[in-house]
Amino acid sequence: MTLIAEGDELLLYMDRKRTYKVKVEAGKQFHTHRGFIEMGDLVGQPYGITVRSSLGVRFYALKPLIRDRVMKTDRHTQVLYPKDIGYILLQLGVSSGSRVVEAGTGSGALTMALAEAVRPEGKVYTYEIVEKHMRTAAGNIERAGLMPYVEMKVGDVTQGIPESDVDAVVLDMATPWLVVGHAWDALSGSGVFLSFSPTIEQVMKTVEALRGRPFIEVETVELILRRITVAPDKTRPETIMVGHSGYLTTARKVVELIEED
Amino acid sequence: MTLIAEGDELLLYMDRKRTYKVKVEAGKQFHTHRGFIEMGDLVGQPYGITVRSSLGVRFYALKPLIRDRVMKTDRHTQVLYPKDIGYILLQLGVSSGSRVVEAGTGSGALTMALAEAVRPEGKVYTYEIVEKHMRTAAGNIERAGLMPYVEMKVGDVTQGIPESDVDAVVLDMATPWLVVGHAWDALSGSGVFLSFSPTIEQVMKTVEALRGRPFIEVETVELILRRITVAPDKTRPETIMVGHSGYLTTARKVVELIEED
Amino acid sequence: MTLIAEGDELLLYMDRKRTYKVKVEAGKQFHTHRGFIEMGDLVGQPYGITVRSSLGVRFYALKPLIRDRVMKTDRHTQVLYPKDIGYILLQLGVSSGSRVVEAGTGSGALTMALAEAVRPEGKVYTYEIVEKHMRTAAGNIERAGLMPYVEMKVGDVTQGIPESDVDAVVLDMATPWLVVGHAWDALSGSGVFLSFSPTIEQVMKTVEALRGRPFIEVETVELILRRITVAPDKTRPETIMVGHSGYLTTARKVVELIEED
Amino acid sequence: MTLIAEGDELLLYMDRKRTYKVKVEAGKQFHTHRGFIEMGDLVGQPYGITVRSSLGVRFYALKPLIRDRVMKTDRHTQVLYPKDIGYILLQLGVSSGSRVVEAGTGSGALTMALAEAVRPEGKVYTYEIVEKHMRTAAGNIERAGLMPYVEMKVGDVTQGIPESDVDAVVLDMATPWLVVGHAWDALSGSGVFLSFSPTIEQVMKTVEALRGRPFIEVETVELILRRITVAPDKTRPETIMVGHSGYLTTARKVVELIEED
Repeated sequence: MTLIAEGDELLLYMDRKRTYKVKVEAGKQFHTHRGFIEMGDLVGQPYGITVRSSLGVRFYALKPLIRDRVMKTDRHTQVLYPKDIGYILLQLGVSSGSRVVEAGTGSGALTMALAEAVRPEGKVYTYEIVEKHMRTAAGNIERAGLMPYVEMKVGDVTQGIPESDVDAVVLDMATPWLVVGHAWDALSGSGVFLSFSPTIEQVMKTVEALRGRPFIEVETVELILRRITVAPDKTRPETIMVGHSGYLTTARKVVELIEED
Repeated sequence: MTLIAEGDELLLYMDRKRTYKVKVEAGKQFHTHRGFIEMGDLVGQPYGITVRSSLGVRFYALKPLIRDRVMKTDRHTQVLYPKDIGYILLQLGVSSGSRVVEAGTGSGALTMALAEAVRPEGKVYTYEIVEKHMRTAAGNIERAGLMPYVEMKVGDVTQGIPESDVDAVVLDMATPWLVVGHAWDALSGSGVFLSFSPTIEQVMKTVEALRGRPFIEVETVELILRRITVAPDKTRPETIMVGHSGYLTTARKVVELIEED
Repeated sequence: MTLIAEGDELLLYMDRKRTYKVKVEAGKQFHTHRGFIEMGDLVGQPYGITVRSSLGVRFYALKPLIRDRVMKTDRHTQVLYPKDIGYILLQLGVSSGSRVVEAGTGSGALTMALAEAVRPEGKVYTYEIVEKHMRTAAGNIERAGLMPYVEMKVGDVTQGIPESDVDAVVLDMATPWLVVGHAWDALSGSGVFLSFSPTIEQVMKTVEALRGRPFIEVETVELILRRITVAPDKTRPETIMVGHSGYLTTARKVVELIEED
Repeated sequence: MTLIAEGDELLLYMDRKRTYKVKVEAGKQFHTHRGFIEMGDLVGQPYGITVRSSLGVRFYALKPLIRDRVMKTDRHTQVLYPKDIGYILLQLGVSSGSRVVEAGTGSGALTMALAEAVRPEGKVYTYEIVEKHMRTAAGNIERAGLMPYVEMKVGDVTQGIPESDVDAVVLDMATPWLVVGHAWDALSGSGVFLSFSPTIEQVMKTVEALRGRPFIEVETVELILRRITVAPDKTRPETIMVGHSGYLTTARKVVELIEED
């Protein structure tokens, strides 16, 4: 059983809308509008333990998963939802040992998910042109303990991708179609290209670029997630939902045969 | 660059609907209705290479990803789609080193995806009550090279789960509500429970069972995947789609605090 | 061309979110936070005319359609959206001359749509148990000029429906399954039953009741409406949408044959 | 109570997938693969009556609704579903007395729905360029008894619309953007334009054309209909569904004010 240790990052859960990422430090108190929690009391307890605030309100000390970190990153640069990230990981086919190029880094949400998937033997090369985003992302990745599996680079992939023979290239940026050629160069044969784009115009341009190169299995999907309220005599899809985050376009690199005569 | 080797399993891709999983063996021919391919010619070529059949039709030699294996497993016992599997992996939060209990094994599609996620240091304990399914799944897992990360068990998890302190329990079976108590016992604190069920009655019973135990973050969603046709003046969602595969119910184990007086 | 006349009810449209239902009265001013409009100036103008407020802001004088009235009724008792109402009208098959029973009246949104469909020769019999709702609905129906085609009744249709040989019975109420038998009695042969319910439990009970009577073509659907943002390089489904309003269950009355021996 | 009369058109319903539109003629038999039915026996019976074929199989004699006729028209030229037609009727705001221009006629499915909505006092002017479609549609409209409310015209509305001051213009054709200017000319102030298009490129061009004219409330939606299987322990959305029929773009004509100084 994993016990909570000094220095761990916890997810303090009060309810679905009120969860807090907090570092465990003896002698520190975590203050909420429902009272404070003595963080030192948690050391040596099992994860999942119930704790009461000074006002008697229950909190649960959860071990943060990647999906918690994704939802807790700065949402200003963030449009990727867990539904999209899960699909991306499966489409890319990345796992321990994979080498992946990502652009742009944004808040690092997808970077963390990729790093978690390729560790301990793989590597994520992540590109960002905005230095401020890069610093925010670095903090997030560092706190998740995933920096050993990430190489962060300030740079513009529309100008080229220095890596080669990578297993996957994944793009969440404004002009993915400008990267299609460089992605082909960087990918190993059979490697996967994936682009996430909110608008259909971006998709049209990206698909056109993919069709102009030796890529096969070019396909675009969107994923719609519906939450269901489940309770006696009240079971129904939720009234308000996220209707659209973005389209996901996937393709696979092939290598042309030198024709023998 | 990875080269194709004798004994590898390939995905021979002709078009989206005609792809074939084939073993590379020198001297063997793979026959299709569009001519045959000399498998030995592929040895030493890079993955992604184009090859022509005896009738001059192009095929591409792809490295099989988990999503290819999932779509190629026996669909008789299979209702999980890649969209659901990607979401499941992210919700479970499994990665290298995780220990997961799964029931039932079915064709082994989810088992393979879980094994790929937890390798090289984790383990999937998968339960199935139908021996015939187990044998089919064993073949699929073996061919994917994932058996070192899987422990296959013939058994009924409604009667109990022998493992303990596991990171996640994932169910794709007819009566998941009968396993909720055993799942709680088997999970470590903060561990994730997930159940996939086609009908809303299954969901209702499972959620009721989860609410009767120390589980939090109980939530049910469904994922809808829409394919988009992207081509000049023809861009639109596809006419016919899969409207429903199943509901995904997630929860997280917590441990009650012993109250001091 | 229809000209605006004294006493008409107009829809003053500023933008999608700011539209106002206003009565045309000479000498009256309509005040908004963007200046006032002299209502008398509109008399004799064609519908659709542009008018400027005292602060120079443009408004358009639209003729209110039923869909405008539906969206402008008191939303406290209102869950039916235009998407649902359009579907209901087509499913019921009502048109000029039809006789329809409705319960409950609520704000009168559906009542107005039904009355507009059955006029000038048909009739809507609408039942409501809450007197306050009935008065609100009466005001809405009166202002739409549709009262000649409506008979408003305070009463509980779970206790029986006095009408007979009606073309359709449509229910938007908490316990539609208690009305199924009375609806069968009230309908003419081949007549249409339709129930709108937010929860799946209501649907289950209603469908079970329908299967216990001579009803055929029992079917349940839900309608999902997605708004699309269409603008150069910004085309995409809207981010936030209404994910669920309710399920629509339809059936058709048949009459059993007396078997001859 | 309406009784079945000689010459009526009936819907003989066996099950959801096997329904037949048949004319009642004494002395005629209607043959199915489940035996024949003596049509003359139905004369004088109430609608909704159960009848047994010569092989003892039950059929129900339903009165055809517009939605039945829509689903029974020649589907070669037909992409409009009842879900779309119901929405169109409500968006157009047409009712008894309305005058509507439609193009193209196609199989006449929407024409019939419009005619049913505007009768007895309104008129549908429907344009089609393919003579063969026009003849098919004429047969459908005639059999539905709706010809008195329809004026059928062979002609190309991209060249102009002769009608004026109409309440609505509705388009289901390949190049709706070429009709936007003519539609504005034909509409009365506050009148409604609606175009149904399968592809997003058609929508983009149509919206651009609408923004270049005095139209307001320009909005595009799509409607997704999900059928729900409702049965004890089997309740769930149906597996295979129609994912897309087309986009619906609506706008409303306004008239610019002549500025006074």
